[in-house]
Amino acid sequence: MLMKSNSSSASHQFGRREFFKGAATALGAAALTGCSTVRASAKKAKNIVSTGDVVLFQGDSITDAGWDRKQGDVPNKQPGLGHGYAWLAAAELLTDRPNDGLRIFNRGISGNKVFQLADRWQKDCLDLQPNVLSILIGVNDIWHTLNGNYHGTLDIYEHDYNALIERTLKALPDVKLVICEPFVLKFGAVNDKWFPEFNEYRAAARRVATKFNATFIPYQEMFDTAVQYAPSEHWLRDGVHPTTEGASLMAHHWLKAVGEIC
Amino acid sequence: MLMKSNSSSASHQFGRREFFKGAATALGAAALTGCSTVRASAKKAKNIVSTGDVVLFQGDSITDAGWDRKQGDVPNKQPGLGHGYAWLAAAELLTDRPNDGLRIFNRGISGNKVFQLADRWQKDCLDLQPNVLSILIGVNDIWHTLNGNYHGTLDIYEHDYNALIERTLKALPDVKLVICEPFVLKFGAVNDKWFPEFNEYRAAARRVATKFNATFIPYQEMFDTAVQYAPSEHWLRDGVHPTTEGASLMAHHWLKAVGEIC
Repeated sequence: MLMKSNSSSASHQFGRREFFKGAATALGAAALTGCSTVRASAKKAKNIVSTGDVVLFQGDSITDAGWDRKQGDVPNKQPGLGHGYAWLAAAELLTDRPNDGLRIFNRGISGNKVFQLADRWQKDCLDLQPNVLSILIGVNDIWHTLNGNYHGTLDIYEHDYNALIERTLKALPDVKLVICEPFVLKFGAVNDKWFPEFNEYRAAARRVATKFNATFIPYQEMFDTAVQYAPSEHWLRDGVHPTTEGASLMAHHWLKAVGEIC
Repeated sequence: MLMKSNSSSASHQFGRREFFKGAATALGAAALTGCSTVRASAKKAKNIVSTGDVVLFQGDSITDAGWDRKQGDVPNKQPGLGHGYAWLAAAELLTDRPNDGLRIFNRGISGNKVFQLADRWQKDCLDLQPNVLSILIGVNDIWHTLNGNYHGTLDIYEHDYNALIERTLKALPDVKLVICEPFVLKFGAVNDKWFPEFNEYRAAARRVATKFNATFIPYQEMFDTAVQYAPSEHWLRDGVHPTTEGASLMAHHWLKAVGEIC
């Protein structure tokens, strides 16, 4: 798709090189981690979303994002998918692959902690028989403990999360798992009291992903990078819940993680 | 990244197959166009955004999306990039590749038609020496004629557009061009009077892209597909200007077109 030309571009190329030589010098080996390099390697991610797959998003309010409880059984439509990252990822997948017979559902419920996923797991996960199951859970496990509405611990979180995945694999041994890292930015509802414990919850989610060989999405790293380009309030409403811009970024990185993006 | 299991899944697989056999039957050859198939082929798109590139978004209000005129010379920051697809595409690129030394700018101006791009092209394009130049222009060329504020024709649009690209290539022979298809959805500001002429403007933009071997982004097809999943008002505010959800979808397809996405 690249344009070709026989004209000489020496002068303007030189000007540009001069102008940006600082940036170019700073790149060095780090540039080798660029996306195009990953694409070119033999290790590029396989796309885990296959033709005909049922894709299920599970989690708390961040996943929920207001999906219409009366329309949740209708796959692929905005009302049943809400207004968050799950919907935006679905919309991008579906407009990319409208003829692939994908069926995408959302069953995130606001306020949920891991044990509450377990309470409704038969109906809201196993019965739907997902081929791809994406879970984002954890922020309430610490938040509701900090505000006195729950008495959770890191061990309970990790134990319950492992038990949930083991139960899932027993029922759906071929399910392709995506585990999303819990994330926050320190403003709004999130203050110093969250740390360093919150980082331990993130690490626990990563251990669960590693243990079960799931695709892991490092959302904390993504948001920490994103604040280089726009302030925290641009990405999250209150330190916890994404704006549409934050949800858009999450959707993009979700697609990247599942191999839809290089 | 896929999970492996030795357990048999025959019974639940059978259940799922039964449930979705209608969808599976309907897929047929169309499924072969899926993204994963493209990735697997030898013809997959090369990523045209290279390490150290200057990326410039040009166009009208859809590209503009309120970028801060006082901060437009600061690359990669939200204020100088606005709130539209250009910003969201930039944010996704930058969080994917924070160490690649990309410098991304927006110079879209609300209300612009092709001749108005030409009027400010030296300062707002050539002087910036972009390596990647993305242009979305055309909706005002027809809209402002329909509402009596301009006397354009299809021939003027195509002639001016070709002249603009020829002038660009003379100054920047190695620039990598992205030409975005103008798009509308028929509601709000867009009524029957726009058709079939609007389709001719779309076709002209595609001819310009083909003539200069530019990457072409078929946004009309994207929005026509998107309305299968959410109503027109979810994607565009008034038939012309995207919502943040519409901008998110545009950003995704922009990245897909430039090879950042399979």
